Amino acid sequence: MQHIGAKHVDITDGFWQKRQKINKDVTIKAVQDRFIETGRFDAFDFTNEKIPHIFYDSDAAKWIEGVSFTLHKERNQQLESFIDQLIDLIEKNRSEDGYFNSHFLRKPEERWKHRSDHELYCAGHLMEASVEYYKATGKDKFLKLMEDYADYIYKVFIVDTAAAFKTPGHEEIELALVKMYDTTGKKRYLELAKHFIDKRGVEDEPWITSNYNKYNTQDFLPVRQQKTAEGHAVRAGYLYSGMADIAKRYNDEELLNACKTIFSNIVNKRMYITGGTGSSHLGEAYTLDYDLPNTKGYAETCAAIALAFFSQRMLLLDKNSIYADTVERIIYNGMLSGVSLDGKAFFYENPLELQPVLNNRNVSTVLTERNPITQRKEVFSCSCCPPNVIRFIGAVNEYIYSYEKDTLFINQFISSTMEYESIKAEMETDFPYSGQITMKISGAEKIAFRKPYWCKNLKITLNGGICDYSIEKGYIYINLQKGQNNLIFELDMTVRLVHSNPRIYDNSHKTAVMRGPLVYCTEGIDNNFPLNDIVFCNNLNYSQVKSDKLYAYMLEVDIEIPGNIEELYTFTPFSYQKKRLRMIPYYCFANRGETEMRVWL
Amino acid sequence: MQHIGAKHVDITDGFWQKRQKINKDVTIKAVQDRFIETGRFDAFDFTNEKIPHIFYDSDAAKWIEGVSFTLHKERNQQLESFIDQLIDLIEKNRSEDGYFNSHFLRKPEERWKHRSDHELYCAGHLMEASVEYYKATGKDKFLKLMEDYADYIYKVFIVDTAAAFKTPGHEEIELALVKMYDTTGKKRYLELAKHFIDKRGVEDEPWITSNYNKYNTQDFLPVRQQKTAEGHAVRAGYLYSGMADIAKRYNDEELLNACKTIFSNIVNKRMYITGGTGSSHLGEAYTLDYDLPNTKGYAETCAAIALAFFSQRMLLLDKNSIYADTVERIIYNGMLSGVSLDGKAFFYENPLELQPVLNNRNVSTVLTERNPITQRKEVFSCSCCPPNVIRFIGAVNEYIYSYEKDTLFINQFISSTMEYESIKAEMETDFPYSGQITMKISGAEKIAFRKPYWCKNLKITLNGGICDYSIEKGYIYINLQKGQNNLIFELDMTVRLVHSNPRIYDNSHKTAVMRGPLVYCTEGIDNNFPLNDIVFCNNLNYSQVKSDKLYAYMLEVDIEIPGNIEELYTFTPFSYQKKRLRMIPYYCFANRGETEMRVWL
Repeated sequence: MQHIGAKHVDITDGFWQKRQKINKDVTIKAVQDRFIETGRFDAFDFTNEKIPHIFYDSDAAKWIEGVSFTLHKERNQQLESFIDQLIDLIEKNRSEDGYFNSHFLRKPEERWKHRSDHELYCAGHLMEASVEYYKATGKDKFLKLMEDYADYIYKVFIVDTAAAFKTPGHEEIELALVKMYDTTGKKRYLELAKHFIDKRGVEDEPWITSNYNKYNTQDFLPVRQQKTAEGHAVRAGYLYSGMADIAKRYNDEELLNACKTIFSNIVNKRMYITGGTGSSHLGEAYTLDYDLPNTKGYAETCAAIALAFFSQRMLLLDKNSIYADTVERIIYNGMLSGVSLDGKAFFYENPLELQPVLNNRNVSTVLTERNPITQRKEVFSCSCCPPNVIRFIGAVNEYIYSYEKDTLFINQFISSTMEYESIKAEMETDFPYSGQITMKISGAEKIAFRKPYWCKNLKITLNGGICDYSIEKGYIYINLQKGQNNLIFELDMTVRLVHSNPRIYDNSHKTAVMRGPLVYCTEGIDNNFPLNDIVFCNNLNYSQVKSDKLYAYMLEVDIEIPGNIEELYTFTPFSYQKKRLRMIPYYCFANRGETEMRVWL
Repeated sequence: MQHIGAKHVDITDGFWQKRQKINKDVTIKAVQDRFIETGRFDAFDFTNEKIPHIFYDSDAAKWIEGVSFTLHKERNQQLESFIDQLIDLIEKNRSEDGYFNSHFLRKPEERWKHRSDHELYCAGHLMEASVEYYKATGKDKFLKLMEDYADYIYKVFIVDTAAAFKTPGHEEIELALVKMYDTTGKKRYLELAKHFIDKRGVEDEPWITSNYNKYNTQDFLPVRQQKTAEGHAVRAGYLYSGMADIAKRYNDEELLNACKTIFSNIVNKRMYITGGTGSSHLGEAYTLDYDLPNTKGYAETCAAIALAFFSQRMLLLDKNSIYADTVERIIYNGMLSGVSLDGKAFFYENPLELQPVLNNRNVSTVLTERNPITQRKEVFSCSCCPPNVIRFIGAVNEYIYSYEKDTLFINQFISSTMEYESIKAEMETDFPYSGQITMKISGAEKIAFRKPYWCKNLKITLNGGICDYSIEKGYIYINLQKGQNNLIFELDMTVRLVHSNPRIYDNSHKTAVMRGPLVYCTEGIDNNFPLNDIVFCNNLNYSQVKSDKLYAYMLEVDIEIPGNIEELYTFTPFSYQKKRLRMIPYYCFANRGETEMRVWL
């Protein structure tokens, strides 16, 4: 199945148009300002002697890539000129051999010596940025510089094997090299990506700190033998994406099977209901099956994004709705929570529960338990997530449609227009707040429309009448007529209670609430009673309430809570009282000051 | 009300006779051997130049005190000779001014300079040991040495104010000085104890590490103004015990009220169902109301013991069953869990849940989350708990009876004989496994028998017939006849479900099981199904099963568990299946290898 890139798709209205507008008008500028303040762009200027952090290049690159996605639709002289100056600095300061790394060019004797130090990771992000900047603007200077760089890396790692390590400590360059190949057609880049994947976990590799082992860097086995998602969740997600890319381009069945096994391990055993992964702050890592703590949950924004990358690539390989379902789970929940509604502030961690009082629990020492922060920040010392959110929201267009033979796949429900070869599509919807999706499609013989996992009933109208369809792997296949086809899909958006696998330790006896793809949470600020021991009534009685402040629909749900109890422990069963619980979409949490938040109730 | 000390009471049979036998025959020797190996006794020998740890004196002293309690009933030449040699070493090595501290005598220039370094704490434990050794053996050499030491401390802290601090960094000496006063009649020791209590929290005091604040050392306010239990839970418990001692001996109403307020804060907001306190390992401290995590629960054995000390002293002041109830909660649960059934190994922390798998949760790093250990150890580098358990079990005799005017109070139900002045009592019972208590009493006009909080119904027979009684503050007052009175109490020991205050975060929707004073837990080793999401049936259907291995009665209880679920999250409500859950008394946990354990289900 073919990917349909951002340049073929316009988001025209609705939920994501609003989010992209904030992304373009506010977030890009806000992150640019913070990165200027913190010297992330100055790193490219070698009249500045200060040694930049090892990952500054990747931060700048992701920001450039994010800007590039906005340029497809509307060029921006000011931003392009800013970026072009950075590109000029890369050209001016790179080595003769094509190497560019703002940190190691200032410590030249250390080049390719430190597997832990993100050298190939930064290179990969620069390559991704150069590809998207070229696609959006047609300017190829950056891309050419990166081709030289990739050629040089090929020489170092394949021809001369001159580095102190064989594979990246922080994966990312694998998927970037595939993009370089897709864009330039140069097979060598694909070979290099495959080389990094094939060599991983085969021989012992150096690693620096004493805190990490082979699991953290996915080095514990050759990748084709790996069966569980392990280690640093962002590295893992990028690696698995690269594996899927290579599996597709080389038709590598063994690699595809490894990807399927790992994907299944993630979604069936190691993923939060929000699509977050990597539950521990120690190593920012996947841990054990069913180990998904709520208040301590790490669930890094970048890890959610990396899993969306992997899921989308698996969709192209396997045409199963589980992959697009997972993308949907991420983009409406665990990715979107990473940025504030005003677009200016970010979460690195996205826990499923905030108990601000517990952050201060150790009143008797100056130490506190390590808990996630309770309010978003404008920048972090390790600020990978903000520009990753920019480029992801900028690229949401790419998740809507895909194409195979005569079939147009409708993967996400976002108001948009699309033109790809002879196919044209228009989609209009207030999804995720409404379940009605109206489409006009021409130039395709069939469509495959994802039936979301949360949707019990669905009604389809084709050109005003009912239509036949078949379902395969979660997709509804409908034969179209010649010319324009008018389709209406009505998805059942009933609010539903979600039960958690009892093996998830922290969710024992707890329930979550979803409406469509949105996971709801409840915040202390909306409810004047304690949020412990809430019991949902058997027949869920609820209503929707529009919140202008959150640009979202809240829910009000009938619940019961225990009456007030003075003792710590009692033999007397509780008496319950009825209350109305106000809930908001999870992605809206922590936008109105510090307050308690819970997903599982 | 008068305390009735160990020398007046013999434990003759039953539960505690068995535990005291293990304590005497096994634990004393085991701890002695470990302390010999680790140099805790060598510290007293100054031909050894190695500088002992700052708290080694207190470890040795608690062990001596523990041995002393066994000597009341049966002298032991070998142990006494071992102890007499240590006493000789104290005499030989102390300063001329009476000072003895094995650490600071080897660093004389540092004496009284470091408030954090347990100097007065060690002195207090030596004094307590000297008092009990004198009471048990009549030998007064140790006591005289400690009188000199106490006289000298009086001079340093009251006459010369020559120390770099005003009050102990680690409290303990307050209650020890009261024992010195009670034993010697020298008012100066009582004055010194009161001085330390009065001065606490009045002026700023030096403190060394950057990890602690004024809460950790109970310095945040003058003690009479303190309303919550704060900081290091062992220090706190010892301080509150000293406060209660002073309140009693000075008739200090204000101090008594502070004690009542703090006690109420503990039992209504900051205590585990097992009587454990100090829920955080950070600062080994009390934290916030209702912050009682299960898997991370610290609940140090010594903190449970310190709370028993405080409770027993409050009982003498206030004659309310809540205090003896709390002692009972501790001695059958959170204290007793501190030692293995074979008497050789110890828990420092007593969590309410063990998930061994979670101790290894961070497979991707070499770091793991900090969790309590899952198996008892024979000795710790900070090994305060093992000798504290020895002296506490050795002194259980002191918790059974107390006396006021003509009334004998029956506080704990333990097979024993007692002679105190003209009163004689005999008690026979298989408590806590049976609710029947048979007593013979003469020489008292009245008895006050504690009606335990867990007992719904109780039947009393006096000399073969029914009897009148009145209830006040949880005590059943019964007028006795002249001569011997035969009493039978039959306590209702029905197994009961305990509901947790919903504000206890970790216990949301969870239930515990108690039978009499025993909190039950369940262990993985006894049940071949997952222990998540267990539901108790409305009418508790259970049976008792004798376990020879545990010397205890297990319970088997009808429960339901959810059927097997493959997905992480499902919209389909669970179907439940019936199971029979095996439970054991909490104090028996972790005696059969590493396995999961849960109290709250």
